[in-house]
Amino acid sequence: MNKPRGRRPGSPDTRSAILDAARVAFVEHGYQGATLRRIAADAGVDIRLIAHHFGSKKGLFAAAMTLPVSPSEVLDRALSGPPETWATTLLSAALRVWDAPETGQPLLRLLQTALDDPDQRPALTGFVEREIVSRIEDRLEGPYARRRATAAATLVAGMIVSRYVLEVEPLHGMRERDVVATLRPLLQSALAPPARRR
Amino acid sequence: MNKPRGRRPGSPDTRSAILDAARVAFVEHGYQGATLRRIAADAGVDIRLIAHHFGSKKGLFAAAMTLPVSPSEVLDRALSGPPETWATTLLSAALRVWDAPETGQPLLRLLQTALDDPDQRPALTGFVEREIVSRIEDRLEGPYARRRATAAATLVAGMIVSRYVLEVEPLHGMRERDVVATLRPLLQSALAPPARRR
Repeated sequence: MNKPRGRRPGSPDTRSAILDAARVAFVEHGYQGATLRRIAADAGVDIRLIAHHFGSKKGLFAAAMTLPVSPSEVLDRALSGPPETWATTLLSAALRVWDAPETGQPLLRLLQTALDDPDQRPALTGFVEREIVSRIEDRLEGPYARRRATAAATLVAGMIVSRYVLEVEPLHGMRERDVVATLRPLLQSALAPPARRR
Repeated sequence: MNKPRGRRPGSPDTRSAILDAARVAFVEHGYQGATLRRIAADAGVDIRLIAHHFGSKKGLFAAAMTLPVSPSEVLDRALSGPPETWATTLLSAALRVWDAPETGQPLLRLLQTALDDPDQRPALTGFVEREIVSRIEDRLEGPYARRRATAAATLVAGMIVSRYVLEVEPLHGMRERDVVATLRPLLQSALAPPARRR
């Protein structure tokens, strides 16, 4: 059993050490399998500090699974310029968030949890439907807005799974600007109002 | 402990009952956690029949993880017409394989195994690189063939994860022809030789 490594109970360090250990534990062992005892040991804190900071296992889970960035804010910013720039700004924004370890790692663990555990999946699915597909749809001009938003979200989902989860080459190792150059024509054809589709 | 339900030892039924039980067990419990005893019980056969048909746990795993269809054959057939039809034929072919329970279910279990278990992931990743990305690349005319093949594979990966794993609406519930109409413009822009890209 690890002994507390002397973190101060109320410090932000303690809170984030617990969150980091919790994210790893929930992904590796699932919600049922992860124990507070083990999370406290991995974080190097007394188990009572988990109750102090998060109340319960459920509270800890909710906090651990809170996104490190707000996708709706990222999306709103990315879609704030003229429409012909959206494919580039949207891809760049997604890549910056996922490539940066401090935001990408927690997101990857969240995604992994949802992929591993059928009980966690509906939360992610509902989130993607409401916060990604519907928000893109609201911004699109012209017909077939829902379809085009779906197509755009499908492409971005494919980028995330291929580049960060499965690590398929060449996508995994590409520089940001090459990923943008690779996927921009596809995303643009989803976001641009169709001249005459079908 | 289940008793053998009287399957004949050498029948194809026995073999496929073992494979079905094995796929479920490997996905649910991982390679280490799945036991031959449990797989035999779930399949309703004597455990000795596993050795008879597959030799060992390793042999059983390899057989269980063998694809129910050959993606390279599906791909070759889908790309056999004129290039302007490829986006439609490729999406239709992928949808037929994944929508049909007899091929889609084993594929979904395979994908789930690879997503769940980091040890199984490189096999899938290597397969996608060799059998999907490189094969599409070989068929493409014009510049940037590798990038365009990567973009096409990324879109199809997004479709599979969104429609079959995460079950994101509206993609999950769409009819085949609506999925094709939704994603075809994107796939076409990857497969068509770029007029003047970048």
